[in-house]
Amino acid sequence: MAGFAAPLRDMEFVFTELAGLSPILSLLGEDYSAELVSTVLAEAGKIAEDVIAPLNHPGDKQGAKLENGKVRVADGWQPAYDTLVEGNWLGLPFPAEYGGMGLPWLVNAATSELWASASTAFALSTILTQGATHAIISCGSEQQKATYLPKLVSGEWAGTMVLTEAGAGSDLAAVRTKAVKSGDHYLISGQKIFITYGDHEMTPNIIHMVLARTPDAPPGVKGISLFIVPKFLVNEDGSLGARNDVRAVSLEHKLGIHASPTAVMSFGDNDGAIGYLVGEEGRGLEFMFIMMNNARLNVGLQGVALAERAYQQALGYARERIQGKAIGKTERGPIIDHPDVRRLLFTMKARTEAMRALAYVEAAALDLAEHETTADKKKQSQLLADFLNPIVKGWCTESGVKVASDGVQVHGGMGFIEETGAAQHYRDVRITAIYEGTTAIQANDLINRKLGRDQGAVARAVLAEVKAQAIKLKGSSRPELALIGRAMEEAHDVALKAIEWTLAAGAEDARLPAAASVPLLMLLGTVLGGHQMARAAEIAAARLGEGDFYVAKLATAQHYAVHVLPEALAYARTVTEGSKTVMSLESALF
Amino acid sequence: MAGFAAPLRDMEFVFTELAGLSPILSLLGEDYSAELVSTVLAEAGKIAEDVIAPLNHPGDKQGAKLENGKVRVADGWQPAYDTLVEGNWLGLPFPAEYGGMGLPWLVNAATSELWASASTAFALSTILTQGATHAIISCGSEQQKATYLPKLVSGEWAGTMVLTEAGAGSDLAAVRTKAVKSGDHYLISGQKIFITYGDHEMTPNIIHMVLARTPDAPPGVKGISLFIVPKFLVNEDGSLGARNDVRAVSLEHKLGIHASPTAVMSFGDNDGAIGYLVGEEGRGLEFMFIMMNNARLNVGLQGVALAERAYQQALGYARERIQGKAIGKTERGPIIDHPDVRRLLFTMKARTEAMRALAYVEAAALDLAEHETTADKKKQSQLLADFLNPIVKGWCTESGVKVASDGVQVHGGMGFIEETGAAQHYRDVRITAIYEGTTAIQANDLINRKLGRDQGAVARAVLAEVKAQAIKLKGSSRPELALIGRAMEEAHDVALKAIEWTLAAGAEDARLPAAASVPLLMLLGTVLGGHQMARAAEIAAARLGEGDFYVAKLATAQHYAVHVLPEALAYARTVTEGSKTVMSLESALF
Repeated sequence: MAGFAAPLRDMEFVFTELAGLSPILSLLGEDYSAELVSTVLAEAGKIAEDVIAPLNHPGDKQGAKLENGKVRVADGWQPAYDTLVEGNWLGLPFPAEYGGMGLPWLVNAATSELWASASTAFALSTILTQGATHAIISCGSEQQKATYLPKLVSGEWAGTMVLTEAGAGSDLAAVRTKAVKSGDHYLISGQKIFITYGDHEMTPNIIHMVLARTPDAPPGVKGISLFIVPKFLVNEDGSLGARNDVRAVSLEHKLGIHASPTAVMSFGDNDGAIGYLVGEEGRGLEFMFIMMNNARLNVGLQGVALAERAYQQALGYARERIQGKAIGKTERGPIIDHPDVRRLLFTMKARTEAMRALAYVEAAALDLAEHETTADKKKQSQLLADFLNPIVKGWCTESGVKVASDGVQVHGGMGFIEETGAAQHYRDVRITAIYEGTTAIQANDLINRKLGRDQGAVARAVLAEVKAQAIKLKGSSRPELALIGRAMEEAHDVALKAIEWTLAAGAEDARLPAAASVPLLMLLGTVLGGHQMARAAEIAAARLGEGDFYVAKLATAQHYAVHVLPEALAYARTVTEGSKTVMSLESALF
Repeated sequence: MAGFAAPLRDMEFVFTELAGLSPILSLLGEDYSAELVSTVLAEAGKIAEDVIAPLNHPGDKQGAKLENGKVRVADGWQPAYDTLVEGNWLGLPFPAEYGGMGLPWLVNAATSELWASASTAFALSTILTQGATHAIISCGSEQQKATYLPKLVSGEWAGTMVLTEAGAGSDLAAVRTKAVKSGDHYLISGQKIFITYGDHEMTPNIIHMVLARTPDAPPGVKGISLFIVPKFLVNEDGSLGARNDVRAVSLEHKLGIHASPTAVMSFGDNDGAIGYLVGEEGRGLEFMFIMMNNARLNVGLQGVALAERAYQQALGYARERIQGKAIGKTERGPIIDHPDVRRLLFTMKARTEAMRALAYVEAAALDLAEHETTADKKKQSQLLADFLNPIVKGWCTESGVKVASDGVQVHGGMGFIEETGAAQHYRDVRITAIYEGTTAIQANDLINRKLGRDQGAVARAVLAEVKAQAIKLKGSSRPELALIGRAMEEAHDVALKAIEWTLAAGAEDARLPAAASVPLLMLLGTVLGGHQMARAAEIAAARLGEGDFYVAKLATAQHYAVHVLPEALAYARTVTEGSKTVMSLESALF
């Protein structure tokens, strides 16, 4: 099994050349320099490589266990988690006033990717805590902030997101868990499923962020409120008090991320679990989306992370495995010299770099939305981040599944043997296209909230940049750039047409945009990822003499243009020609 | 978990309308009627549904075990296997003179699909036996036929294919297992890996078909010979004699098909395993290909089978699972009414039906190659079967992976939970694109042997039929047919261009066709599968009044044309524009 090497060079390239780290740091002030970021990144890389990555495969075999009412995590989990807490890694993107490092979300995107490459099952122990922290910072009362934030920001306590019920998955309007007011708190009762790291002993306390319905609330999403339900109640002096009435009932037996305990959680089996309302009643879903958007970016980054890990695993194998004489060679040699293995590896590499660039650009937009100098600039950046969020989540995870599958294929028969390690990445990555909202849910968000709210204005503005860049490259005297420019212009044109078609189709039948939504999301991911590769190519072409990294980047961008970008043609055709057939056969005839 | 319902209606449709069962039966003689075939198919369907399918999930959980040197199969395997032997199901396609039913390969394709849908891990116990049987019929001596065929045809004994070694996977030229002549037999020694059903106790004997190298043989593939190595030697009276020097050393821990024992086999740890040469020395690979082509069709059918099973699983869930209000509905309803779920299911259905039709057309060509009335007709049919073989194997398995992945997606979070059943199909199907030759090996066969040997003559003839049919449909007054015709004509055009490009590119650089080979294979599968759907659409359109089956078939063919066929555009672009980038980055820069 190949080890993991943190892809710091490509991360730094995306930071500086594509995502604009430098202007973000300027906005943050003098304390934050590019050198600091490099040091932080290098240290995170070391932890990912040396501390977390070696746990990934043993953790998969061992899994998490529920024994005598306690969740036992895999061996090595606790010291690795303690390492993250000691380094204040969970606090990286949070304000210094709560004990955080105050670094950009852009940097947090890179560390998130690193933890997830090293072990997605382990990394999940940090993502939900960061989501809960973010929600309390944004929506909590001063008292709630004082009580929970210091411990959550540091990671001394963990946080969870408690949404799903057996009858309420994608449709949160159907949440039935009850919250009844009782003095200064509420009593929560009901059963929740699919709760990631719902229980464990790695931290002395766990802060559950729970969606529940108050007795006289209106039906649907407007009747849902958000509650803080600590595993142990917190005394006024900050010490831990009574055990709350919440427990893990069972753990799921899953396809992948075996070492991540996915719990069925029962609230209020006895007297009712004590919960504290966040904000006002009825705003639960709105607040939950603050966590969810953060978590969705993080899950998109898991797609990037597992693609990177699968690529490294396959590349290592392809360099070592001797099989057959490659065309033009006189001796048996490594399979990387066989054209189809090279094709698989190159396409894996191209997809992964494009996914990373697009995800980091979203993270950078979040930083600008927080720190830009004017309200208008903040708003523009927030609109861009909002637009990219479902695309990054949907496209990076679906692409991650493809890359991990290609990784298995590079190994041939060995890819199907669990000891090799390629199969685990293939199993683990499959959930990323499902949790925190399936690709269809992301696509629904894209067409209704993101395209619908401004009738495509942000989308057109983003595509206008794509077009301008494409035309610039098309005119280049360097054939690689001209080729990329031509391919990008064509991809832009079909993407714009698909967006216009989708916006218009709703007038005819509201089901048409919905039928088109996932192909449209995949189309936009493919084109916007390609745009980042095109930007990278232009920069790399000017620096070919400065090192192999730029030679590889230019070649990879070109490969993307002719091996990945053509998928845009198929997606676009499906959107504009195919959406009408989707509902053409009545369900009884399937 | 959804049960399994044999898709007999679609199988019969493909038999009669697309694959030409009737002329094949006429060639076989009066004993074989369409009624007989229907009866056989219905009986096979019942066994698949009632006897085998219920074992699939428990077998996956239990797995096969090697204990005290013996392989223990999962509970229920033995009686299910006995049921197949009692019904002479393994003998279905073999001549009556050896105890077979003498039915067409076309019918065997359907029963193979049924067993694999019911449980691929179980079905593998029949495929290798049929492959070994086929090889001995084709290449064995009269004595070998007399000794082994009656027991193999009936399935009383099992057969295996023993090719792979740790250093010889895709590259069989590297086989090192030794065979030293010793009187009337050879002594075989060496270690083989990835031997499917390499050992078990379901049958009293197992006949291993082993590739090995004689001491003074030339290097490479010409030095390899094929040997029959029985687990128990067979006395002259047919009774079982001494235990041969061959044993299972270990079983692999795999991503899927857990209940299929995949063994590391050791030959000749003591005195050498006694083996009997098949044909002459040096012809091992040639003979092995007889088994392999048969096995490749069967593995392609596993792709079809698992796609069908995954589709049924997802369809059942989508009809039962209530979640959200679909657009235009006033009540919460089943998720099949949500456009993106419908899109996934419809695309799964369209792919599966196209794959089945193409695979059965290959099986029918094998029947005609055996039974046609003139040598020339036989040859033409054999050339067609040869051409389709790598496409059916490669495209149907890669498509099977896609369909099973979509099946997981339809389930949302439940798809990731092993108890649901969708995840098992996703794990099981992944091996089909690898074993019996990876998709790259199929693509290599396609461009070198199948296109190269006649410079594309068969391919062009096949595509000419595609074009003629497309033009006919394009002129139809029925809009669905006209749409399919237009889409097929465009797909034809890009496919023909891609073939011509690939044939020509070798002159510039031999690595170019190799780099293009897998996208070309996928392109041809997509187009030829589409052609079968177009033929089906034409027939269905003329019979819409005769039942819902035809309504669904026409709609499904149209959906294929706008949701699957556009992938041909992307593959074609990749072949003609993308093949040059594949080797453009030196391996050290990855």
